[in-house]
Amino acid sequence: MSIQYVLEIIGTFAFAISGALTLKDQKYQDWFGASFTAFISSIGGGTLRDILLDSYPLVWITDIAIIYAIGAGILVTFVFYRFLLRLRKTLFLFDTCGIALFTIVGTEKALNLGVRPEIAAIMGIFSAIMGGVIRDTMTNEIPIIYRKEVYATACLAGACCYLVLDHFGVERNTAFISASALIIVIRILAVRYEWSVPRFFR
Amino acid sequence: MSIQYVLEIIGTFAFAISGALTLKDQKYQDWFGASFTAFISSIGGGTLRDILLDSYPLVWITDIAIIYAIGAGILVTFVFYRFLLRLRKTLFLFDTCGIALFTIVGTEKALNLGVRPEIAAIMGIFSAIMGGVIRDTMTNEIPIIYRKEVYATACLAGACCYLVLDHFGVERNTAFISASALIIVIRILAVRYEWSVPRFFR
Amino acid sequence: MSIQYVLEIIGTFAFAISGALTLKDQKYQDWFGASFTAFISSIGGGTLRDILLDSYPLVWITDIAIIYAIGAGILVTFVFYRFLLRLRKTLFLFDTCGIALFTIVGTEKALNLGVRPEIAAIMGIFSAIMGGVIRDTMTNEIPIIYRKEVYATACLAGACCYLVLDHFGVERNTAFISASALIIVIRILAVRYEWSVPRFFR
Repeated sequence: MSIQYVLEIIGTFAFAISGALTLKDQKYQDWFGASFTAFISSIGGGTLRDILLDSYPLVWITDIAIIYAIGAGILVTFVFYRFLLRLRKTLFLFDTCGIALFTIVGTEKALNLGVRPEIAAIMGIFSAIMGGVIRDTMTNEIPIIYRKEVYATACLAGACCYLVLDHFGVERNTAFISASALIIVIRILAVRYEWSVPRFFR
Repeated sequence: MSIQYVLEIIGTFAFAISGALTLKDQKYQDWFGASFTAFISSIGGGTLRDILLDSYPLVWITDIAIIYAIGAGILVTFVFYRFLLRLRKTLFLFDTCGIALFTIVGTEKALNLGVRPEIAAIMGIFSAIMGGVIRDTMTNEIPIIYRKEVYATACLAGACCYLVLDHFGVERNTAFISASALIIVIRILAVRYEWSVPRFFR
Repeated sequence: MSIQYVLEIIGTFAFAISGALTLKDQKYQDWFGASFTAFISSIGGGTLRDILLDSYPLVWITDIAIIYAIGAGILVTFVFYRFLLRLRKTLFLFDTCGIALFTIVGTEKALNLGVRPEIAAIMGIFSAIMGGVIRDTMTNEIPIIYRKEVYATACLAGACCYLVLDHFGVERNTAFISASALIIVIRILAVRYEWSVPRFFR
């Protein structure tokens, strides 16, 4: 069992928790809705990436551990949600680690499938953000990428960082950790200092 | 022509009718919008299932009878919509039979493609509900699964029932009919006695 | 480099501009959001068509020129958006040429993949409109196809025209140009004389 696999399971678990918790602000909050939302949030991005790249079978269809990680995330949210909601800062860290990890794993996977670096970066970002975009679209929210400070842009920076390091032959684990760390640092600084992406229409 | 095939065509026809009728409450109701909505409602769930399972070609692309069943549903809705709207209870039964059938057909198809039972159940539920979810998302409604009493949960129960019967070697037609009937009975009781799925956040 | 390829690149460029400009009316308008919206608008329809037809690899994944055309569209919008917004009539023409072209290219591609004419027409319409539908759904707008005068219906007419001409053995370029012209003419007349598709519910 590689470190990367363990991290992916943890990322899926974290995404399931943050997915289920988003339903707290919605009018409808039954068990099925919460589980469905957690599920879509966790697997949406990676699934879209794999469909676009024609990379079958989908990971969660063959590896049942992912379904169980999501189930565990739903259960933990159900039992501890009051506690979790008080921990907003910890959750923010969880979500940030999740998107950092998913971005680099997605970029790497696309690269291994032989696509160009530009496409690999797009696939990395899609892996990280599209689960949230699909979830927000379904629940009639404005998708997270339109709202949050430097959210997807941090993923873009991390993906580019990974691609540059990879291009110059930097050892994989070093590149992986550096690029993920860059995403996490940008996100934390962005929230701390209220950075925002420049407006498109001046 | 198998019984199952006939039932699928009837299910598609029923889903097209209920899809076109949802547009009645919307501001925009032209012919193209109604046909498009009916089409997406009917084929959305099964299409998503087949894309996730990499099961190509898609059924409605090779079997033109499905397109004609949808066309017939749209025409029938156009001609008889006043009558149909008065028959809300009958329509509820149509929709309920549709989701029951689509759930079990979807579960069975996934199982035949060699996935694990947990995944087969998810695929069965997706077949039944995702057409409606996509339709509601497009027309800016809160998706049906977040609203309706014990809607997707009935599908889950039916899919599990089918999987258990299949596991114990119960003959296929018996399993099919029992599991579909369970979904229909749960839905009817849920609406009759106003059952609801327990809240996730207490 | 064929004429059709050049037209496709121009169509992608035009769709990226009209996609980025739609964000002008939204609350959130940062660079990432505008680029993401332009990207989804441009590639959404063709991508959905190719996924449904199992036609891999996706065009924009192998042909980087499409990504650059979108990037150019985003940059041009950024620099000239005031000018572009004043040119609403020109933009309408751009968008109309874009949907005309994408409809016929999509119909033709589906036909070449061996599907029936009815399915080819659906694929042609999907190519032209689904990018906009996905974009509008994400930004919580009512999708364009529910709103605009004779929008998708013009595509349907063009696709049918192409299929009829193809059926009677008309030379490909003639069929292509006639069918595209028909879409453009219908759209222009529809806007000029405020045509609308008949109501479904009378």
